[in-house]
Amino acid sequence: MQVQESATPTACMIVIGNEILSGRTQDKNLAWIAKELGELGVPLREARVIPDNKQVIIDTVNEMRSKYSYVFTSGGIGPTHDDITTECIAAAFNVAVQRSPQAETILTAHYGKENLNAARLKMADIPAGASLIMNPVSAAPGFKLENVYVMAGVPSILQAMFAGIKHELKGGAKILSRSIAAYVTEGVLAEQLTAIQNTTGDIDIGSYPFMRQNKLGTSLVVRGTDQAQLDKVYGQIRSMLLSLTPEVIEDDIAA
Amino acid sequence: MQVQESATPTACMIVIGNEILSGRTQDKNLAWIAKELGELGVPLREARVIPDNKQVIIDTVNEMRSKYSYVFTSGGIGPTHDDITTECIAAAFNVAVQRSPQAETILTAHYGKENLNAARLKMADIPAGASLIMNPVSAAPGFKLENVYVMAGVPSILQAMFAGIKHELKGGAKILSRSIAAYVTEGVLAEQLTAIQNTTGDIDIGSYPFMRQNKLGTSLVVRGTDQAQLDKVYGQIRSMLLSLTPEVIEDDIAA
Repeated sequence: MQVQESATPTACMIVIGNEILSGRTQDKNLAWIAKELGELGVPLREARVIPDNKQVIIDTVNEMRSKYSYVFTSGGIGPTHDDITTECIAAAFNVAVQRSPQAETILTAHYGKENLNAARLKMADIPAGASLIMNPVSAAPGFKLENVYVMAGVPSILQAMFAGIKHELKGGAKILSRSIAAYVTEGVLAEQLTAIQNTTGDIDIGSYPFMRQNKLGTSLVVRGTDQAQLDKVYGQIRSMLLSLTPEVIEDDIAA
Repeated sequence: MQVQESATPTACMIVIGNEILSGRTQDKNLAWIAKELGELGVPLREARVIPDNKQVIIDTVNEMRSKYSYVFTSGGIGPTHDDITTECIAAAFNVAVQRSPQAETILTAHYGKENLNAARLKMADIPAGASLIMNPVSAAPGFKLENVYVMAGVPSILQAMFAGIKHELKGGAKILSRSIAAYVTEGVLAEQLTAIQNTTGDIDIGSYPFMRQNKLGTSLVVRGTDQAQLDKVYGQIRSMLLSLTPEVIEDDIAA
């Protein structure tokens, strides 16, 4: 019997690290991966930010990997005492951590045999059954186990790792979007916007207030998989905005 | 019988919004609130980013409010069709949404009676039993229901709302931290760092690799509630780093 694949694959991101929860480090991986996944037609449905705590990591990984097609983790795979992600993933899958000869070869080539100390060698240890995710930036690999992709937290490294695995992901239809903004507050446009949303079918309209130079405005984002339908709704929204204000900012991408 | 308060109050943040999960908007509220809470001695233990989906919001709020002392939400309390946070919080608590006369007075004063259309009046509707969180930026209030604080997603508004409620939060000991960085990779310092961590008691050491101008380095962050102990461990780490490199960056705060 062939297993039926879900029509729309889904993804979840688990950001692992006390430094994000203390506010010391501003996470930048979530927004980056979200955009990449959108391009691939794999919507990111949820993200969790969790501490460097063994049981929390294990429980979260197990909950997410049964819930979503793909799980991506960032952080905690380095050589120091607070890097516990690898052992937690192994524990979540109930497998041992073991030395990967392939990873050892990579690390030996990168550092030289004389510099490959015990701490660095620890980065060659991955869960049994996992395959490596290459790291062209600083050598120490991530790994993939079933539907869980374990990557570094440093954005440049995570991005290089993701570039190496994204061809493996099976996406649905690419999610397209267009955005338009104006210095009109949500309260002024809400009623007309609801009327448009009620007729748009599969096109989703998001309304996001912003403040720039102390002026309140609204960004309206249309999202869907059909370009023609998307452009039509965009046109309706543009006309609606121009009935309220003389100036709109087309295809505005500012957050 | 008096209910025993937990020694260390804890917090969770729920970021509500499709725009964060699509990568369109970079969340900035999590890091900001995390720092504020750290100052107040209320460690942020977890954050979740969830979509504008009724059942997901209800389930997440109910899970988090029983797990943590304080829950903070951002996003979804405006006047448009995709602002569904208020009705979801009410559903999570199994109470009705009702017009707040106080909120209506505030909105009338802000917009003028003639401009207070139905969409704007919707922002005066809050769950029964909730109290208002004032919004000195754009008037429409957030609200608090038991241990759940519901705030706007626009950072300047969220920050102004938080400023108005933070005096209510009962914190434990303030979490202090110091940070030092150097262009030494984690693999070089890991063993000595583990030796230091093994003797530091309640002081937690975090090790965070970074890349700046294409050079890899490590930030080491010591965190704890005892300033003298913190300074001692900081000194040990500083000496360790200076045994490996001639230059360190003291009290480095770059992410």
